[in-house]
Amino acid sequence: MHRVLIIGAGKSSTYLIDYLADTCSSKDRTLTLADLDLDLAKKRLKDRKNTFAAKLDSNDAPARQQLIEEADVVISMLPAFMHPIIARDCLDMGKHFFSASYESSDLRAMRSEIEDKGLLFLNECGLDPGIDHMSAMKIIDEAKAHGEDIISFKSFTGGLLAPESEDNPWKYKFTWNPRNVVLAGKGLSRYVEQSKLKYVPYHQLFRRCERITVGGLGNFDGYPNRDSLAYRAIYGLQEIPTLLRGTLRREGFCKAWDVFVQLGMTDDSLSLTRPTDSSLREFLNSFLPFDPDQSVEEKLTALIPDMDYETFEKIQWLGFFSDRKLPKTEGTPAEILQAILEIDWAMGPQDKDMIVMQHLFEIKGKKGTRKLTSSLVCQGEDSTYTAMAKTVGLPIAIAVDLFLDGKIKVKGLQLPVIPEIYLPILEALEREGIRFEEKGELIS
Amino acid sequence: MHRVLIIGAGKSSTYLIDYLADTCSSKDRTLTLADLDLDLAKKRLKDRKNTFAAKLDSNDAPARQQLIEEADVVISMLPAFMHPIIARDCLDMGKHFFSASYESSDLRAMRSEIEDKGLLFLNECGLDPGIDHMSAMKIIDEAKAHGEDIISFKSFTGGLLAPESEDNPWKYKFTWNPRNVVLAGKGLSRYVEQSKLKYVPYHQLFRRCERITVGGLGNFDGYPNRDSLAYRAIYGLQEIPTLLRGTLRREGFCKAWDVFVQLGMTDDSLSLTRPTDSSLREFLNSFLPFDPDQSVEEKLTALIPDMDYETFEKIQWLGFFSDRKLPKTEGTPAEILQAILEIDWAMGPQDKDMIVMQHLFEIKGKKGTRKLTSSLVCQGEDSTYTAMAKTVGLPIAIAVDLFLDGKIKVKGLQLPVIPEIYLPILEALEREGIRFEEKGELIS
Repeated sequence: MHRVLIIGAGKSSTYLIDYLADTCSSKDRTLTLADLDLDLAKKRLKDRKNTFAAKLDSNDAPARQQLIEEADVVISMLPAFMHPIIARDCLDMGKHFFSASYESSDLRAMRSEIEDKGLLFLNECGLDPGIDHMSAMKIIDEAKAHGEDIISFKSFTGGLLAPESEDNPWKYKFTWNPRNVVLAGKGLSRYVEQSKLKYVPYHQLFRRCERITVGGLGNFDGYPNRDSLAYRAIYGLQEIPTLLRGTLRREGFCKAWDVFVQLGMTDDSLSLTRPTDSSLREFLNSFLPFDPDQSVEEKLTALIPDMDYETFEKIQWLGFFSDRKLPKTEGTPAEILQAILEIDWAMGPQDKDMIVMQHLFEIKGKKGTRKLTSSLVCQGEDSTYTAMAKTVGLPIAIAVDLFLDGKIKVKGLQLPVIPEIYLPILEALEREGIRFEEKGELIS
Repeated sequence: MHRVLIIGAGKSSTYLIDYLADTCSSKDRTLTLADLDLDLAKKRLKDRKNTFAAKLDSNDAPARQQLIEEADVVISMLPAFMHPIIARDCLDMGKHFFSASYESSDLRAMRSEIEDKGLLFLNECGLDPGIDHMSAMKIIDEAKAHGEDIISFKSFTGGLLAPESEDNPWKYKFTWNPRNVVLAGKGLSRYVEQSKLKYVPYHQLFRRCERITVGGLGNFDGYPNRDSLAYRAIYGLQEIPTLLRGTLRREGFCKAWDVFVQLGMTDDSLSLTRPTDSSLREFLNSFLPFDPDQSVEEKLTALIPDMDYETFEKIQWLGFFSDRKLPKTEGTPAEILQAILEIDWAMGPQDKDMIVMQHLFEIKGKKGTRKLTSSLVCQGEDSTYTAMAKTVGLPIAIAVDLFLDGKIKVKGLQLPVIPEIYLPILEALEREGIRFEEKGELIS
């Protein structure tokens, strides 16, 4: 009898829990779900056979280690900084470890020990990273097997709203960690285009987006996402002329978000103390040059030379030209902006989210160069069974299931970039409705 | 007999050493100058009577503490992060401590201990911080004594070139730490103008400068320098409607420097590895949007909408449109940019530097509101006796001299913002040729 432990029963764990809990009786397994909130864990498990809820403060090392000791496979759904701690416990006690987060340098430092003990530590097995790796590697490996060259690969992913919930001018609400959304893109992003290295600083990022079209859904903005060059090694595409990874937002979002970036309103370096009765209008005015003869609207339009009505409307809809009081008056600009957005971009009980991923390949073969577009669209069912939870949780649940069934045999520190891992997971994901639509055309 | 210890014989210590060494025999004092480079220390002391050179690795705690034990007053001219360590030694051994650097929170944590032991710890006693405090406080205290209100105070300082050395299009060379120049202004700057709080992000900073005119020298750009609001408490101006501190560069510098900022070439967050034969032109191109149909010059002009000939010429003069090889191909963009600039902005043996400081006050009294402009210009003599070394080193040398003469009696953790300290120092600085020119006019 195999014993599975999931640590973390939060929003992104719903599908993961269901998938593994549902197989507990048929596959003669037990599932323990540990969370600080015992009631939440119980609710998620729905009294299924062979499932157990446990209350756990993950900082409580003895309690944590006891639960891990009693498991064979541990899945960490905690915030990323906790993974190395859980992984260390697993390594010490000889347990397999799974996560949907980036493989960190702390994890890499454990590589030889993981191998020596014959364990599997599989990371980046969620959506992005996760499904992106698997679906891309399937295409890349197939092309290579046919003696073809990948000459361009651009890949975009977005956590968005289902079209029926796009009921504000931004066509956006927080379907994921608001702080990460507000700070997205900080630093220097880099990619390579036709063999030219390209660096994009944060304050140019949302102006450097390209239009991405997804069949049936219309247009999106795709902006470069951090270090695309790192994927050359991960995907075995060291010499590829064009490689770009990006984030998707609805068309027009980036231009309006760029207003906040240009103003400095996403700064997270300096904590402000505003008068407690400050309005959104005054907050906006603080980021504009002083000019006693111009209104806030005039100064903003002067600062943003390509301001258009659609952009202006988005800023206005959030109340930035109004005397509405700031919901938070102490904190960094980014923290105050987040508090404003959390009011207006909150998901309603009826709202549904949507995940969109698109790979754009150019592949050179004997017959010429073909363009291959592979797109995934996944819509959430409700506020518990979200597309985000489905696409993050199912790959890891399936990976664990396959591993316990003996269908994934590889050991060591792994990413889902090898066929033994990605092929059966992609197959199982298709059965769950997570499937890519491919379109190809010969372009030269 | 008083024993003075200076730790650090670097570029900014020349005037400090001379001033104190010259008084050693007449005032029955000894001066020990400690540096990692014993020959440099000897050279600086010029065999003057009662002076001693010592070799010191300041990380060698026993050696450092022995030298401090043998002194009565310690002046730290080390990099700022070393000050708390030296100060701690001084506190433990009951020695007075002087520095030209910002009073840090580490120093503030020692406040009550300093007071208990009856010691004087005087920081911010150089140029900026230092002479700026003293000259401003003299005006502020006089106005307050006359029952006047300071309604506006803007203060700008620049480490610049003497006009005769302004022989490149930038009219700038590195007269001070190049890395600090390249990274200047990162983060969010803030000030207050007519009671409106103003925040300026880095990528707007060099566009938000104002023209500053100094008699006989022409025009300069003044851009806001970090947290001007902190000076409300230091200067006792809590309710002042307008308070701005800024940095001076030659007119036109900021517009051209802003090109590097907009490009992202001052980013210090991501380390790049460029091909070893990369040219400056290719480096510049990496920060421009991809467009196979446009030249680097065209793409740059498209990215910077208000590019003018003067700005273009400055970029061109540095070789950014040429095939000149990068002097450094690994490092952050800021580190690579610094390496480029260190070639073209190096001070020649004949070059002279210049310090410019200007305070602009608006003071409301019974007869109306008057404008008071107080300007300091100090030119260097050569590459050893620089204006920077003079204005940083003399205030601290004079402070130590006055303290040992018993003319400064105050104890505790101090800044030079009280008349007992700033009045005699300003008087002595005038005798050394460091004097402010004041101009006043009634404006309403």
